Amino acid sequence: MTRRILIVGAGPAGTLLACYLARRGFQVDVYERRPDPRLLDEEESRSINLGLSARGIKALDDIGLMDTLWPLTVPMRGRAIHLPGGGAPFQPYGAHEGEILHSVLRRDLITTLIDHAEAQPGVSFHFRHRLVDLDREAAAVHLAEEGTGAALTVRGDAVIGADGAFSQVRARMQHGLRADHHQEFLEWGYKELTIPAADDGSARTRLEALHVWPGADALIVAHPNRDNSLTGTLFLPVERFEEITDPEEFFRTRFPDAIGLMPHLAKEYAEHPVGHLVSIRTSPWHYRDRVALIGDACHAVYPFYGQGMNASLEDCTVLDRCLGAHPDDLGRAFAEYQRLRKPHTDVLDELSKQNFVELRDRLRSPFHLARKKADLLLARLLPGRWVPLYTMISHTTTPYADALTRARRQDTVLRWAGVAMGAVALAAVRRSTRKGGPRC
Amino acid sequence: MTRRILIVGAGPAGTLLACYLARRGFQVDVYERRPDPRLLDEEESRSINLGLSARGIKALDDIGLMDTLWPLTVPMRGRAIHLPGGGAPFQPYGAHEGEILHSVLRRDLITTLIDHAEAQPGVSFHFRHRLVDLDREAAAVHLAEEGTGAALTVRGDAVIGADGAFSQVRARMQHGLRADHHQEFLEWGYKELTIPAADDGSARTRLEALHVWPGADALIVAHPNRDNSLTGTLFLPVERFEEITDPEEFFRTRFPDAIGLMPHLAKEYAEHPVGHLVSIRTSPWHYRDRVALIGDACHAVYPFYGQGMNASLEDCTVLDRCLGAHPDDLGRAFAEYQRLRKPHTDVLDELSKQNFVELRDRLRSPFHLARKKADLLLARLLPGRWVPLYTMISHTTTPYADALTRARRQDTVLRWAGVAMGAVALAAVRRSTRKGGPRC
Repeated sequence: MTRRILIVGAGPAGTLLACYLARRGFQVDVYERRPDPRLLDEEESRSINLGLSARGIKALDDIGLMDTLWPLTVPMRGRAIHLPGGGAPFQPYGAHEGEILHSVLRRDLITTLIDHAEAQPGVSFHFRHRLVDLDREAAAVHLAEEGTGAALTVRGDAVIGADGAFSQVRARMQHGLRADHHQEFLEWGYKELTIPAADDGSARTRLEALHVWPGADALIVAHPNRDNSLTGTLFLPVERFEEITDPEEFFRTRFPDAIGLMPHLAKEYAEHPVGHLVSIRTSPWHYRDRVALIGDACHAVYPFYGQGMNASLEDCTVLDRCLGAHPDDLGRAFAEYQRLRKPHTDVLDELSKQNFVELRDRLRSPFHLARKKADLLLARLLPGRWVPLYTMISHTTTPYADALTRARRQDTVLRWAGVAMGAVALAAVRRSTRKGGPRC
Repeated sequence: MTRRILIVGAGPAGTLLACYLARRGFQVDVYERRPDPRLLDEEESRSINLGLSARGIKALDDIGLMDTLWPLTVPMRGRAIHLPGGGAPFQPYGAHEGEILHSVLRRDLITTLIDHAEAQPGVSFHFRHRLVDLDREAAAVHLAEEGTGAALTVRGDAVIGADGAFSQVRARMQHGLRADHHQEFLEWGYKELTIPAADDGSARTRLEALHVWPGADALIVAHPNRDNSLTGTLFLPVERFEEITDPEEFFRTRFPDAIGLMPHLAKEYAEHPVGHLVSIRTSPWHYRDRVALIGDACHAVYPFYGQGMNASLEDCTVLDRCLGAHPDDLGRAFAEYQRLRKPHTDVLDELSKQNFVELRDRLRSPFHLARKKADLLLARLLPGRWVPLYTMISHTTTPYADALTRARRQDTVLRWAGVAMGAVALAAVRRSTRKGGPRC
């Protein structure tokens, strides 16, 4: 008999998982509170852009989606770091060809994913269905149709919570269990500001880059779009957003070269909401063979490593592998999935927190730039044997914790190399001093 | 007009707070899901015992309760540490007279508190009322009467959540806010086991002590009761409880001297449930001037420092002080209460986690015992100027974080003293070597 999986949440993780599950022969029903994004016009579906990197690409490619997606992306070949005195030096992302990121609109990604998933046998989407309750013993969801309020109960073999950082599936699945939960809001929030294409349709700044305006008190990150616009994200301590009453004045002193790129700054600053950033580590990720979580529902991270969505897409490949290893035992597959995956997303949480500090405080430091250059040089000299942490995280599918372990080993080598060079230099100095000094 | 405060939860913190609020002229209504503990017989109200220390005593004494409570307590003058080879050396708690703990049954404490609170003008208790919802804007609670299910809505000037580690007031108050939340279950759980009085009514072991059977794989802590019994708490890794099918056999190898003290071991082991231990740090503690949290609802700690209830009672004194400082502004009083108090309960959380490791791994180490003795010796030699951390936490009302800071300073002094003594010794050795050795 065909087993039926109910997925709550039609974001990138839930929708991609539907494709993977269909390939394994499951019947899949996806329930989503919001309307079908394919029916909304651009105004209604405020879209952000995301940086697709190796992990996300691999997960999408395995299901045959990248051919459709490539034309919808813009390559980002490195970072353009805007300095306060003017100028924006360019740091390439990787030491090797192809080590680049790809900017994509969330809307383009999700509609492509839904189109593909819906075309698989056994997959159905049910939009405007809100989760009211979960019966974790029965793998049943109680839903309400938005608008009519009509109630509906659906029972499956298992329920997957793909409903984001504030997952209702998670809350109901973990209720009364020995659940660990770590939730932290960053003291900084964000606001989106556009860098539109110029009047002649060209880009106002280098398009194929991730632009960063670093700073200890405020920072901006901007991703390119296919229409030659860029979407900027201004990060500030949450309380600062209200304090700044004249954003143009603030930009003139703080980001003078961004002013010319953002003709709608004042209007957008007034109209766009402040977004909040949350980090979540939680456990358990599953309840017996009945319920499991993927994506932000089990590991939300700050966006500063650009890995949140990539990690969520990669979850699907890990869960899929576990389902392959235990085809007749969902409980073992879910347990194995948490055991294999959680240590890595825990490390990603840590790295994403550290990268906020890097973007804010260290990106402009000469030491940091020198270290980045040394790393890339070593990577070119020792291909495959020296891989900078950023490269492993963004341009490979080496599991996050393994990447960190290897980077730490490389750091130790660098430190010992420094010590050894210091010792050699010291010996040379002493030798020359002895030669020239008085003999005893 | 008299302001009205609604307290959810009639545990020690909620009930003591009712007394403090009544003294400030508030009208107070306390809602509690469970029945009135004064109406239950001993069998129905499974009671645990707690170690009252300086902070709890101070908080109770300020409201005039200790005279009633003293006769209900048993002094614990130190720890009796049961060693695997037999023998139970006694470590006194403090360097000075009066630095002792007091064991009290939770039931005795709570019924005394309720009797006292109910006698204050303006205080009413409503048992068997379950919180259904909280309207944080209106400071209103929606309640259901247990049994009849009758619904009730009550509105006050503010609501206090004193409803424990899994506080429903907290969940509803923080909903949708930028709330940080850290919840961790200890990998060990507990089970209560009695050491009854002997047949002649005498105690089976030294009564006026906290008994500890330390161990890396299992440990027991026992508090004395007025009837010459002791209540033991067996701590084990959670999964071990089920694995042990013959507890008497397990005790014979692991706690041989406890076997004779626990004649009902097998029966109690089979019948008593496994308890779980949770640590919670959370923020915010209040919502404007409408809702605030006290006790476990805002800071649950592991029981290994014996401070959980003492800290909850101390909360009442801090909140009371803040209400005194801002008599006409509940919002400022609540904000000030969180600002003043949270750093200290965060430190207590850390200390309680560390003390688990101490009880489990270090209590038997000769180094640890030597350090304890050195600390007590210094405390006797330098009264008031050298105060061991344990003494500050348990026998003073020095705020927790201040106690930790001071203890760290003392540690540094000890370390430098060690270094200095080492240097002096080394100098002496070199001098004597020089004197005796060949001259150059």
